[in-house]
Amino acid sequence: MSGKIPVAVLGATGAVGQRLVSLLGSHPWFELAGLCASERSVGKPYLEAARWLLPSPPPDFARWAKVLPCEPDARWQIAFSALDAGPALDIEEAFARAGAVVASNARSHRMRSDVPLVVPEVNPEHLGLAELQPYGGRGAIITNPNCSTIGLVLALAPLAERFGVESAAVTTLQAASGAGYPGMSSLDLVDNVVPLIGGEEEKLETEPRKILGRLEGGRVAESGIRLSATCTRVAVIDGHTLAVSVRLRSRAAREEVLEAWASWPGRVAGLGLPSAPERPLLYREEADRPQPRLDRDEGRGMTVVLGRLRACPLADWKFVALSHNTLRGAAGGTILLAELAASRGLCGLKAPGRPRRPRFTRSFPIDIIRTAL
Amino acid sequence: MSGKIPVAVLGATGAVGQRLVSLLGSHPWFELAGLCASERSVGKPYLEAARWLLPSPPPDFARWAKVLPCEPDARWQIAFSALDAGPALDIEEAFARAGAVVASNARSHRMRSDVPLVVPEVNPEHLGLAELQPYGGRGAIITNPNCSTIGLVLALAPLAERFGVESAAVTTLQAASGAGYPGMSSLDLVDNVVPLIGGEEEKLETEPRKILGRLEGGRVAESGIRLSATCTRVAVIDGHTLAVSVRLRSRAAREEVLEAWASWPGRVAGLGLPSAPERPLLYREEADRPQPRLDRDEGRGMTVVLGRLRACPLADWKFVALSHNTLRGAAGGTILLAELAASRGLCGLKAPGRPRRPRFTRSFPIDIIRTAL
Amino acid sequence: MSGKIPVAVLGATGAVGQRLVSLLGSHPWFELAGLCASERSVGKPYLEAARWLLPSPPPDFARWAKVLPCEPDARWQIAFSALDAGPALDIEEAFARAGAVVASNARSHRMRSDVPLVVPEVNPEHLGLAELQPYGGRGAIITNPNCSTIGLVLALAPLAERFGVESAAVTTLQAASGAGYPGMSSLDLVDNVVPLIGGEEEKLETEPRKILGRLEGGRVAESGIRLSATCTRVAVIDGHTLAVSVRLRSRAAREEVLEAWASWPGRVAGLGLPSAPERPLLYREEADRPQPRLDRDEGRGMTVVLGRLRACPLADWKFVALSHNTLRGAAGGTILLAELAASRGLCGLKAPGRPRRPRFTRSFPIDIIRTAL
Amino acid sequence: MSGKIPVAVLGATGAVGQRLVSLLGSHPWFELAGLCASERSVGKPYLEAARWLLPSPPPDFARWAKVLPCEPDARWQIAFSALDAGPALDIEEAFARAGAVVASNARSHRMRSDVPLVVPEVNPEHLGLAELQPYGGRGAIITNPNCSTIGLVLALAPLAERFGVESAAVTTLQAASGAGYPGMSSLDLVDNVVPLIGGEEEKLETEPRKILGRLEGGRVAESGIRLSATCTRVAVIDGHTLAVSVRLRSRAAREEVLEAWASWPGRVAGLGLPSAPERPLLYREEADRPQPRLDRDEGRGMTVVLGRLRACPLADWKFVALSHNTLRGAAGGTILLAELAASRGLCGLKAPGRPRRPRFTRSFPIDIIRTAL
Repeated sequence: MSGKIPVAVLGATGAVGQRLVSLLGSHPWFELAGLCASERSVGKPYLEAARWLLPSPPPDFARWAKVLPCEPDARWQIAFSALDAGPALDIEEAFARAGAVVASNARSHRMRSDVPLVVPEVNPEHLGLAELQPYGGRGAIITNPNCSTIGLVLALAPLAERFGVESAAVTTLQAASGAGYPGMSSLDLVDNVVPLIGGEEEKLETEPRKILGRLEGGRVAESGIRLSATCTRVAVIDGHTLAVSVRLRSRAAREEVLEAWASWPGRVAGLGLPSAPERPLLYREEADRPQPRLDRDEGRGMTVVLGRLRACPLADWKFVALSHNTLRGAAGGTILLAELAASRGLCGLKAPGRPRRPRFTRSFPIDIIRTAL
Repeated sequence: MSGKIPVAVLGATGAVGQRLVSLLGSHPWFELAGLCASERSVGKPYLEAARWLLPSPPPDFARWAKVLPCEPDARWQIAFSALDAGPALDIEEAFARAGAVVASNARSHRMRSDVPLVVPEVNPEHLGLAELQPYGGRGAIITNPNCSTIGLVLALAPLAERFGVESAAVTTLQAASGAGYPGMSSLDLVDNVVPLIGGEEEKLETEPRKILGRLEGGRVAESGIRLSATCTRVAVIDGHTLAVSVRLRSRAAREEVLEAWASWPGRVAGLGLPSAPERPLLYREEADRPQPRLDRDEGRGMTVVLGRLRACPLADWKFVALSHNTLRGAAGGTILLAELAASRGLCGLKAPGRPRRPRFTRSFPIDIIRTAL
Repeated sequence: MSGKIPVAVLGATGAVGQRLVSLLGSHPWFELAGLCASERSVGKPYLEAARWLLPSPPPDFARWAKVLPCEPDARWQIAFSALDAGPALDIEEAFARAGAVVASNARSHRMRSDVPLVVPEVNPEHLGLAELQPYGGRGAIITNPNCSTIGLVLALAPLAERFGVESAAVTTLQAASGAGYPGMSSLDLVDNVVPLIGGEEEKLETEPRKILGRLEGGRVAESGIRLSATCTRVAVIDGHTLAVSVRLRSRAAREEVLEAWASWPGRVAGLGLPSAPERPLLYREEADRPQPRLDRDEGRGMTVVLGRLRACPLADWKFVALSHNTLRGAAGGTILLAELAASRGLCGLKAPGRPRRPRFTRSFPIDIIRTAL
Repeated sequence: MSGKIPVAVLGATGAVGQRLVSLLGSHPWFELAGLCASERSVGKPYLEAARWLLPSPPPDFARWAKVLPCEPDARWQIAFSALDAGPALDIEEAFARAGAVVASNARSHRMRSDVPLVVPEVNPEHLGLAELQPYGGRGAIITNPNCSTIGLVLALAPLAERFGVESAAVTTLQAASGAGYPGMSSLDLVDNVVPLIGGEEEKLETEPRKILGRLEGGRVAESGIRLSATCTRVAVIDGHTLAVSVRLRSRAAREEVLEAWASWPGRVAGLGLPSAPERPLLYREEADRPQPRLDRDEGRGMTVVLGRLRACPLADWKFVALSHNTLRGAAGGTILLAELAASRGLCGLKAPGRPRRPRFTRSFPIDIIRTAL
C-alpha cells in the first residue's frame, strides 16, 4: 500500500539492533515489518525484551510489536542483521535461501569470496558479487564492514584513487557502544583504557584490502595496501577516533591531500539514497579536532570527520579520523547499503517512486560501473 | 644535623610540585627546606596557596611552611623545578649560578647542548655534560624528559642496546594530570577524546634522540632513530598509554625481544638509589594489559609496564607501554635523577651515609661510564 | 522585513551564550542581530573569540558576525543575557534603561522585588512586575531562575496547585556544563564527585519561594514552602538529576500525584510559544529513570522528566527529576520567557504574525491572569 | 605453626572476594588457607578463574592456589563470605554447622534475629547474639552491613550516643565497584547517573535500626530512628558519597556535633585490632570535601570522612559522608569484624599472641559489655 519495502531486523534487541529499529521506524523507502531476536526474547513485547538504550524514543512499530524468532517470512524483502557472528552464520543463509536480501552488520560472511563487503561511497560495484551467490538470483547476503574499518576506508579511498596507498598504520580509540550492551564494564573504562579489542585488529588489517580491491572476473582482487592496527577502548559513548599514518604510492603535497578529500563526492552521490550524507568526508581545520562528542553527529552521524593532517617523519602523512560507530559504522551504514541495493534493483528490490529495474542479471556489476556510478 | 641534603621545590603549588613535595617529605637523602612559587602565592601558608590534590596527606613540612619566592638561597643544595617553561628559563639559571643543582622537569633547558637530559637507567653518563656548564663547577642544570618520552625511551633502550632501533611510531593516550591543575576541562574529557596536546609530538620526536645519543667529546651525538608521534588526551587521571611500533636494525624473534626487556637491569641497578624501582620494566602476559588504572602504580609508579608484543605488518614489532606520568614521568623521575647526581657527587653533593666523592671533575663522565654504570 | 524581532546576546561566547546563539539562529520570532561579549573578545570574528562547544554547527549569523561590546543599540528589542553575575548587574540595567527587554539568565537581579523571576508554565503573571521597573515603560529586566531551580519548581508546581507543598528536600547531581567552560577541571570529575557548588544551595532554597509566590498589590508574596538543598557535581555533560522528597499540605495518594503531573498543562499551553515543549512534565514508569544521558533531550530539552515516585518514610513522597541544565535550565528557558513576553506584548514587543497588543499598561498582570493564562 | 588462624574465602573470585584475598594475604592474625568459589571455577588455578582487578598484586597464596568448592573443611576456623545472597543462604549455614565462624558480607542472614549485624566501633556487644545460634556453640554466622549502611551508621553513632537521633534522610552517590564485576555497564555510567540500586534503599532504611539497637534479653531491640534513602550510582570507581540530613532528639550546636565526632573513639579503640583505623571518623574543614578520589583511602580505606556540616532548614543538620565501599564497606569491614570475634574468643577463636580466652559461653555478651568495650 505504502509502496515501501517491508523489512525485518534480526537481533533487534541489541545495541545495533535498536539503532536499526530507530532509523527504520521513519524510513522513506523501508517499512519495519518484523523484529526478530533470540529465543529468550521471542513472544515478548519488543520494549520488554529490549532495554531501550537510545535517547530518541522508539518508533511506533516497536511499541506494539512482539519479538519474532529469527526465521524467514516471505513478506520481508530485506532482513537487516545485527546478529552476533555465531548465530548470524546460519540464520543469514536461511534468509537468503528464502529469497530475502540480507544486509548484514555481522562479520560471519564478510570475507566469503562471493559476498560483497561494501562501503557504498567506495565500492558499490562489488554488490555485483551477489549474483554469484547460490540463492537462485532471489536472495542475497550483502555486508557492511566492521565499525572501525569504515572510517579508515572512507578516509583512504580518495587517496587511493588519486595517489595510490602503499600502506597505512592506525591506532584506534574506540567507543564503548562498539561492544554492545552491557558490553564493557564501567570498572574497565572509568579512569582507564583497555588496549585490546578481541579480533578487531585483524579485521582492520584485512577488510580494507577487500573493500579497496578491484572487481574482476567475478571476484575481488584484493588491494595490495598493507595495514597495521592497534585497537584500544576508551571512555566514550559513541564515536571511534583513528590516528592514521599513510604512505602513498605517488607523492602528494598537503594541499593535494586536502583537495582529494574535499573534492571526493563518493560513488553514490546523485543516487538520491536517503541515508547518504551530504558529504561523506569533512575536514576540520581546528588544531584539536575531530573529537567524538563534538563531531560524531556530523551528517546525521554518516559523515567521517577528518583533521590534523601533517607530515609523518616515517610515512608520508598523518591525520585523525572520526566516525560514529553505531551510525556510519553499523546501523546507518547497513541501511545505506540496503538503499544502494534497492536503488540498483538487486534481487528485484524496488525503491519507492523509482521505475522498477529489471531483475538482477549477470550484467549487474557492469551496469553499475558503466552508468550511474 | 640529619646529614640529609637540604632541597627546595620551585613551582611547589602545582600538580607536579605537589608530587615532589609529597615524595620529598619522607625522602631518605633529601630534606625539604623550601617551597617556592610565583608571586601570587608568596607569603601564604603552603596549604592555603596550594589546593592539595593528592589522596595522600601533605608532609609535615608542608603543613607549616610559608611559600617563598623563587630566589636562590645558599642553604639549598638542590632545587627541584616544576616550573612552567616560561619562568623556568631564567629562574633555573639563577639557581645554577648561585651554586645549586637544579633538577628540572621543565622543558626550557632540555635541548641545550650542555644540559644533560637523562633517564637514569638509560643514559646516566650524560650527567657529565653538566661539567661544561658555565656555573663554575658548583651549580648545574640537569633535566628530566617529557612525561611521555620517558615511557617510550625506557621501552626502547634495551632494544636499542641489543638490536638497534631504526625507527618507532607511537600513538599516546595521555592522562589528564599531565596537563596540570585545573588543566583539561571536564567538558573536554567526559565522553570525549582530545586528539591534540600542544608541543607534545615534537618533544616525543626529538628528546629520545638526545637521550639515546652517545656522549662523545663533550657533546651528545644524537641517536639516528627516526620517530613519529600522535598524542591524544583521554579521561584517565594518571598513566600515559603508548601504542608503539618499532623497526629494529637487526632482526629479533619475539622471545628475544621479551628477553631483552626481562634481562635489562637499567644502568643504575646496584647503586642503591632510593627511588629506583626494583625493575624498570615489567612485561605482562595478559592479552589486555597494561591498563592505566591497574598498572600505573607498579614499582611505586616508577616501573614502565609493557604488554601486547606482536608482529607489526609494517615495522617489526608492536607493543603497548604504560608509565605513570606524574611519578616516573615527572616528580619521581626528577628525584631519581637527583639521586643519581648525589650518588655520583655531582657538584659536591653527598648522599647521606656514603663516602664523599671528590668534587665534580673533568673525569666525571668517564668515571661513571667505567665504574659503577 | 522578516517581521522578526531583532535581538542581541550578551555574553555570547560562553557556554550558555553559545546555546542561546544556537537556538536563536533559527528562531521563528527572533532574529539574531548582535553578539556581545567582554572587551577581550570585542572586534574579533565570533567563532574566533568563542570556542564553539556544541555538536550542532553554529548558525550562519555567527559565522560572519564580529563580537560587539556589551552596549545598548536601539535596533535590539530584546537582549538575552548570559553574562556573569558581576558584569550583569550594570550592563543589564543599561540595556533596560535604553529601552530593551533584557531576558536574563544571570542571578544579579532575580531577587529584586520589581523583577519578575519566571518559569513560564508556572508563574507567567509575575511578568507584570516589570511594569514597576523604573525604565519608563519601555525597557525591562525579566529573569530566568537558576538551572537546578527550574527542574524543582516545574516538578513541584502541580503539587503546590493541587495539594499544597509544605516542604521539600532536594539533593542534586549536577552536570559539568552548569559550571560553564572550562568550568570544572577533569581532575575533579573523573572518578570523583564534588559535593559543593558555591551559592547553589542558597538559590535552590530561596528562588522557588518567589516563583511559587502570589502576585498581589504589585509585589510577590513569597510562598511559605520550606526548602533544603544539597548540591553536588558529577561527571555528566548535560542534565541535572534531583532526588526530591516532599511534604504536602493535604494528603495525596500515589495515583493522585501521578495524575496531578500527567494532567498539568502548564500555564502557557495554547499560547503557541515556539519553545514550549508539548508537555512540560513527563513521568517515566521504568524503575531506573530518569537518567541524564537518556532523558535530557526529551521535548527538545525543555521537558522535565520525572520518575521513581514512592512513599517517603519521613516526608510524604520521594521522586527523581531531571532537566536539561543548559536548555530548559538556561538558554531554552530564557528564550521561552522572552517568547512569553513577546506574546503578551511586554514593552511593545510584537510576536510576528500576531496582532500588536496595546503598549504595556498597568492592566497587564490582570490581563494575563484573566485571559489566556 | 605460624600460630595464625587458618581462614578461607567464599566467593573468592568476585570483586569483594579479591579484596578479601588481597587483605588476608598479609594479615597478622589470619592465614589464607582456602579459596572457594562456584562450580564454574572449581579446580582452576585461582588467577585463571579470577580476573584480578586490583592495582596491588595478588598475594603469593593466590598465585598457586586452586579454587575449591564452597564446602566446609575442618581446618578453616573462619570463613569469610563474599558470596551472592542466593548461594550464601545455605552455604554459610553449612559452614557454621561444621564449626566455622562465618564472617559474611552477604545480606542473606543479616536481619535474622539471632545473627549479629555489627559495625565493630558501634555495636560490638551484638556479637553475643551468636551464642543463640543453633550450631552447638562452635560455629557461628556474624555479618557485616551493606556498604552504604556502614558509612551512615558510623556517622550517626556518635550523634545517637550523645544527642539521640530521631530521623535521618540520605541520598547516596555510589561507586561502580559496589555492583561487583562486571557490574554496571560503561554505557550506563559514562556521562550518566543511574538513580536506582535495587534493594539498596530498603537496606539503608532497615539495617541501621538493628545496628543502633540495644541488645537486651538475648535479642536486639531496634532503634527507633526513622530513615529515608535515595540511592544512585555514579561514575566513580570506589567510594560512596552520602548526603545526610539528621534530626536530633536534643538540640546540639554545630561545635557540639563536631566535637561529638572528633572525640568519638569507637568501641574497639585499644583492642589492638589490626584493621581498626587510627580514627574511625575524620572531619574535613574544606568546603568541598569529602571527595571520593581524594578521601576514600583515608585510614587505609577504613576511616569515614565527613564534611560540610551546616544547618538544615528542615531537619537539624546536614553533612556529607564518604566511605570506601569495598574496604570499610565490605572486605575491610568484614575482616575487622572477624578480628573483633577473634579478640573476644568467639567460638574458641584465639588471636595470635593473646591468651586463649575461654570457649564461647553464655557470659560472652555481658563480658564484652562490661570489660574492654
